[in-house]
Amino acid sequence: MQNFDYKTPTRLIFGKGVVEKLPSVMAQFGKKILLTYGGGSIKKIGLYQKVLELLKGYEIVELSGIQPNPKYDPSVLDGVRLCKEHNIDVILAVGGGSVLDCSKAIAAGACYDGDPWDLISYKVKAQAALPIVDIITLAATGSEYDSGGVISRTETNDKIGYLDPLLYPHTSFLDPTYTFTVSKKQTAAGIADAMNHTMEQYFVEDATLLNDGFCESMLRSLMVNGRKCIENPEDYTARAEMMLACTYGCNRILSLGNSQSGWPCHGIEHALSAYYDITHGEGLAIITPRWMKHILNERTLPRFVKYGINVFGIDANLDKWEIANKAIEETYKFFESINIPMHLREVGIDDSRIGEMAHHIAVNEGLENAYAPLTEQDIVEILTASL
Amino acid sequence: MQNFDYKTPTRLIFGKGVVEKLPSVMAQFGKKILLTYGGGSIKKIGLYQKVLELLKGYEIVELSGIQPNPKYDPSVLDGVRLCKEHNIDVILAVGGGSVLDCSKAIAAGACYDGDPWDLISYKVKAQAALPIVDIITLAATGSEYDSGGVISRTETNDKIGYLDPLLYPHTSFLDPTYTFTVSKKQTAAGIADAMNHTMEQYFVEDATLLNDGFCESMLRSLMVNGRKCIENPEDYTARAEMMLACTYGCNRILSLGNSQSGWPCHGIEHALSAYYDITHGEGLAIITPRWMKHILNERTLPRFVKYGINVFGIDANLDKWEIANKAIEETYKFFESINIPMHLREVGIDDSRIGEMAHHIAVNEGLENAYAPLTEQDIVEILTASL
Repeated sequence: MQNFDYKTPTRLIFGKGVVEKLPSVMAQFGKKILLTYGGGSIKKIGLYQKVLELLKGYEIVELSGIQPNPKYDPSVLDGVRLCKEHNIDVILAVGGGSVLDCSKAIAAGACYDGDPWDLISYKVKAQAALPIVDIITLAATGSEYDSGGVISRTETNDKIGYLDPLLYPHTSFLDPTYTFTVSKKQTAAGIADAMNHTMEQYFVEDATLLNDGFCESMLRSLMVNGRKCIENPEDYTARAEMMLACTYGCNRILSLGNSQSGWPCHGIEHALSAYYDITHGEGLAIITPRWMKHILNERTLPRFVKYGINVFGIDANLDKWEIANKAIEETYKFFESINIPMHLREVGIDDSRIGEMAHHIAVNEGLENAYAPLTEQDIVEILTASL
Repeated sequence: MQNFDYKTPTRLIFGKGVVEKLPSVMAQFGKKILLTYGGGSIKKIGLYQKVLELLKGYEIVELSGIQPNPKYDPSVLDGVRLCKEHNIDVILAVGGGSVLDCSKAIAAGACYDGDPWDLISYKVKAQAALPIVDIITLAATGSEYDSGGVISRTETNDKIGYLDPLLYPHTSFLDPTYTFTVSKKQTAAGIADAMNHTMEQYFVEDATLLNDGFCESMLRSLMVNGRKCIENPEDYTARAEMMLACTYGCNRILSLGNSQSGWPCHGIEHALSAYYDITHGEGLAIITPRWMKHILNERTLPRFVKYGINVFGIDANLDKWEIANKAIEETYKFFESINIPMHLREVGIDDSRIGEMAHHIAVNEGLENAYAPLTEQDIVEILTASL
């Protein structure tokens, strides 16, 4: 078991109607709020109006139009500029993981005199960040309970995961009813995202029995409840359980003491999203079973056997290789069953830039140190199998 | 699923050798430390000397002799007096859950002008508490990651669980090697304690699939690793996993969104420890299977069936009642197999005060609102069956 140093100081306020507590939380900070959001879905569900009503008396500056795979330019740069111009005290992010990820980069950039990219690219360590409060409207990334964000820089095809303990949200509001209107497509992508977060912590060399059980429970719960959310978008219990499960995805609580996996599917998917701006969860769902097939060997076999038996209930008496292959097949079939496009061509990616992407991944993602080490050639093969 | 408001701000520094980081943590506070510990086992393992060496330059005031089932008088009162006399900045608790529980009550009492019992008995809400750092030497209570403590007041036979968000430790150091010298008896009691913490969150009316999996993983891991710790006290991996599992016992992470159980076994056991000062984990192990048998009925049957199948691997094709009864039997047999005395008479408790204890429990513990409501008569029956 590995040593670790762990703390998640975020307060989770969870359940129907909890946004009523927003004023009591915001009262801890100053009066100047940067309100960040995306494309307007929060207006459709009345949340935008609700927030403004609850925060009467505050000075609210808005940054809207934050896109999925949030962009350094213009979103992060605009947000940083607004914070400095208006002397912002606290950021209130309302939306999904992209809005929150972007807000985290803004929070750090607002307290730094130089180019915020210095921080995101780890050239400079942030010394401070504005406090962040969020209201989550999409169950997927787990950003509401972790200290990271993923930022894309279009001109260099960079999509960088930026982590700093300063970036844990102060408080995350999670009301499952706000996810009732999330489309089937985005719900499915969220399921795949959270499932892959779990798998990235489960497929490791050295895992505890305890963490294996936590991860297996995550995967079973996400499949059962995720499917219910797609079948009946207003199933409160299913939406709630999916929302909570997603929250645990990236704050390490599922894998404390485990060895590191290197997060290979994320490493590969980040290039897909950076080059083609596809939906992150869909990219992960496409890559995952191909990555599994590619790394299945004598050494990794026992992990896949355990995964197959405990997550999919495959008969433990079957031949080990049969269990492992069935488990990979079940993974593929589950994603397919929730209507995720399972080929890169279906999301607009052909073979023309595979070499370029594989090179970018090999240079930037450190996957030669992953649980199953991946060379540039391995990455080419995984991407080609995903076409 | 129930609404919740949750935050565990404690930093966990876990693994072999991590105590070397103690100076960097303590540097955040002032120079005056109250060092709390128990009966001297920390001297035997060299930890006491190590701590003093690491904290050269600090003014250290000592409170030793804190007992299991820590006492309001003298320990809490002495600690509060010392904090006030020496203007203490931070408490460093070194030992097991009892030392830490006692230190939490001291931390609150030190910042209150009146009788500290006002706080523990919830007559007055604490407004502040001294920061607490701990180094844990016994895997059991989970106090290192929660905001509660249990304090006994001998003259009134009160044993009160005292909870306040102010009492989360600032930082908990968990080095599994410090638990190598824990006796088989105390190791077994620790296993039973952590298992019962989990069961108190698992046997509820309304639980998520996610939490059920977390709890089942806790129970399986505690049984497998606990047994290894008893067989080979210096098995680092087993001690480490048991230590981490115990840490999750009481901070609610296993049951966020579940309905409340009322913690019935703890309610009953607290009276046993208060009247007879027995080892808490042993009391829990004795009570648990008798409580299970007492509450098994049509309504609770499905929970016991799930428990039997997922925790003990009982054949799901058997008759439901057979599975449930087998599960209770397996629970009993596991505790027996790690040499816990499984009858009250073996720990010095006869039937002479059962009526008195049952009355005390019925009046003070609110078990009429438990998952399976318990009247005074029910408690008499459970205690009698445990003799």
